[in-house]
Amino acid sequence: MSHKIVNLRVRDVRFPTSLEQHGSDAMHTDPDYSAAYVVLDTDSGLKGFGLTFTLGKGTEIVLCAVKALAGLVIGKSLQEIVSNFRGFYRLLTSDGQMRWLGPEKGVIHLATAAVLNAVWDLWARAEGKPLWKLLVDMVKDQMLKEGYPAYTTSCAWLGYSDQQLKQLCSDALKSGWTRFKVKVGADLEDDIRRCRLIRQMIGPSSTLMIDANQRWDVAEAISWVSRLAEVKPLWIEEPTSPDDILGHAAISKALAPLGIGVATGEQCHNRVMFKQFLQASALQFVQIDSCRLGSVNENLAVLLMAYKFQVPVCPHAGGVGLCELVQHLILFDYICVSADLRNRMCEYVDHLHEHFTSPVVIQDAHYMPPKDPGYSCEMLEESVNRHDALCLEKKTKN
Amino acid sequence: MSHKIVNLRVRDVRFPTSLEQHGSDAMHTDPDYSAAYVVLDTDSGLKGFGLTFTLGKGTEIVLCAVKALAGLVIGKSLQEIVSNFRGFYRLLTSDGQMRWLGPEKGVIHLATAAVLNAVWDLWARAEGKPLWKLLVDMVKDQMLKEGYPAYTTSCAWLGYSDQQLKQLCSDALKSGWTRFKVKVGADLEDDIRRCRLIRQMIGPSSTLMIDANQRWDVAEAISWVSRLAEVKPLWIEEPTSPDDILGHAAISKALAPLGIGVATGEQCHNRVMFKQFLQASALQFVQIDSCRLGSVNENLAVLLMAYKFQVPVCPHAGGVGLCELVQHLILFDYICVSADLRNRMCEYVDHLHEHFTSPVVIQDAHYMPPKDPGYSCEMLEESVNRHDALCLEKKTKN
Repeated sequence: MSHKIVNLRVRDVRFPTSLEQHGSDAMHTDPDYSAAYVVLDTDSGLKGFGLTFTLGKGTEIVLCAVKALAGLVIGKSLQEIVSNFRGFYRLLTSDGQMRWLGPEKGVIHLATAAVLNAVWDLWARAEGKPLWKLLVDMVKDQMLKEGYPAYTTSCAWLGYSDQQLKQLCSDALKSGWTRFKVKVGADLEDDIRRCRLIRQMIGPSSTLMIDANQRWDVAEAISWVSRLAEVKPLWIEEPTSPDDILGHAAISKALAPLGIGVATGEQCHNRVMFKQFLQASALQFVQIDSCRLGSVNENLAVLLMAYKFQVPVCPHAGGVGLCELVQHLILFDYICVSADLRNRMCEYVDHLHEHFTSPVVIQDAHYMPPKDPGYSCEMLEESVNRHDALCLEKKTKN
Repeated sequence: MSHKIVNLRVRDVRFPTSLEQHGSDAMHTDPDYSAAYVVLDTDSGLKGFGLTFTLGKGTEIVLCAVKALAGLVIGKSLQEIVSNFRGFYRLLTSDGQMRWLGPEKGVIHLATAAVLNAVWDLWARAEGKPLWKLLVDMVKDQMLKEGYPAYTTSCAWLGYSDQQLKQLCSDALKSGWTRFKVKVGADLEDDIRRCRLIRQMIGPSSTLMIDANQRWDVAEAISWVSRLAEVKPLWIEEPTSPDDILGHAAISKALAPLGIGVATGEQCHNRVMFKQFLQASALQFVQIDSCRLGSVNENLAVLLMAYKFQVPVCPHAGGVGLCELVQHLILFDYICVSADLRNRMCEYVDHLHEHFTSPVVIQDAHYMPPKDPGYSCEMLEESVNRHDALCLEKKTKN
């Protein structure tokens, strides 16, 4: 069956996460985790589901961009797309008029990711396989049995109180978590207190990472992180502007003697930037994102480059659906590319999974390989209706 | 008077330039030069006009983004904005939810540029001065008398025939032009023929530049441009991906022995990228753009960095309104920053000026300093109405 795509629908789905400060960090103080959610309809009745992740306001701009791309997708068959996926990718990213709006970055690239994620989901469903299995074509026993190691960001958002941190850490330890990330960057004395607290809770053998969400200049990053070296963080994440490759290289060099690596990638806008981060030794941990890069296509390119430079990939996740999607990619990375778990783990955040038809399964702090066909993008119809921003707007007006 | 901003209007203005292949290059084969055109209304009756430039399709996405920013502008007084312009700039670029869509790149940054351009225009009008004069606060005699040197891109778009090239070069020479740019990158043999033809027309003492609009990989750029060295181009513009700083550095190094510099900037998305291009010796000519960077604010930062690194600034212009706007910035650069004309010139393209109330004035291949108050963004109402994409759509439907 050719599965001709006959329609593309896109919804503006918003979750009011800012109300409880989930996701808060030094730069994004009130995020409402949201998604531009794409559904592809085919003439065979099979559907493909895709999304990109946003922080609330402005999601309507991404919808507008998805609609602008829709004409390039509707009318094509799945067969036609996958028989020349490179050509289809370029059709979306290299339109002679629209590429000016990027190229391959920002709103237009987020929209490309949402659309392509839906295409990959459709393909995997057509094959009756979860995406990672479509990719690896064979499954390693170890992954099926033990899963892929995860770390948690859920214990230490910037807006949480010390009491809340303690409780969440204590709960996580009981559930088997051994790798933790803390948000830092707003106030140095606060950071020292919070990081000491968590290191004390988790003990010396657990892994601790810190994340500044781009808050600092280059010199500031070096001095600030040096002050936090006592808690032995494995990495400092997003120490400065995501565009400042040479700045990250300077920070990496300065922090290497302290045993602290630099991690970045969640706002690294395309493969060309990742290439230079690797060439310049500007990062020691590659954080791919399933919804900012141009879907599976561009993420595979980054996985291969990271392998060439022998830098571990530790994906960014959380948000809306990012855990669901990226688990497929990191399984592929382990089974087909790196075959290595040293210093490798995938981020996990425990919000909003209940809105998906195939939510991630975490066992003993590991991602268990998903078995349902597709790319795990499909949301519950009820969730979409309840959080559709346009519907909410209408309700508010009435 | 405080000039409180009471409304922000934005229009989707498109000119069918692709019909005659004006603007065609190796990557943008059918551009319809377009603009997201912003008008600010104040309670005093004074208006501010701003725009950003686009290539047609997708302009509606930029409009959507401008509308998302409007709430941050409406209700503010000009006084309030300019008394803390840094704070206002960050308000637009650092919203905790919307910055995810960039940050500071792509659609959301183009929209920021359009809005801020209108604010600067409003400020200059409130002071009764053209923007450059507001900036420099004093005028050097030389500029008023002779103007700022320009080069022309109008003679050699990629889609023009040899006959058309010859005629346009001949006309331009008669009007006093001595600096010419040629589009290259689609076909090497064609490029050799066209470049030889133009060098022959303009003679050995005129200046020739070539522009590939990002068509090549790094190695391809070096070999292709080496083949064109015989026509002695001053620079190769946009040899590869605008994000590939280290790639530009490699190309610069390889072409230096041939006496060919690298120019780039029209798709360099923010100041952080320009900083690294300068740090890595990846360009020899800085091409600022009045509508991609965050308006005057961010362009001034780049002018100062270019001066620090002693790299000449040769602005990108053409498109819609880019000549009108950027002439203000390059006058400021000469009068207040570089005080140097060696290897410095501003791009000129002779399309679409007739739609502006204060079009650029070119005399003897020089930009003559504009004297009307403002930032030269205001379009004729009739032009806006005739090219408004939404109005056109309605007409087509009826």
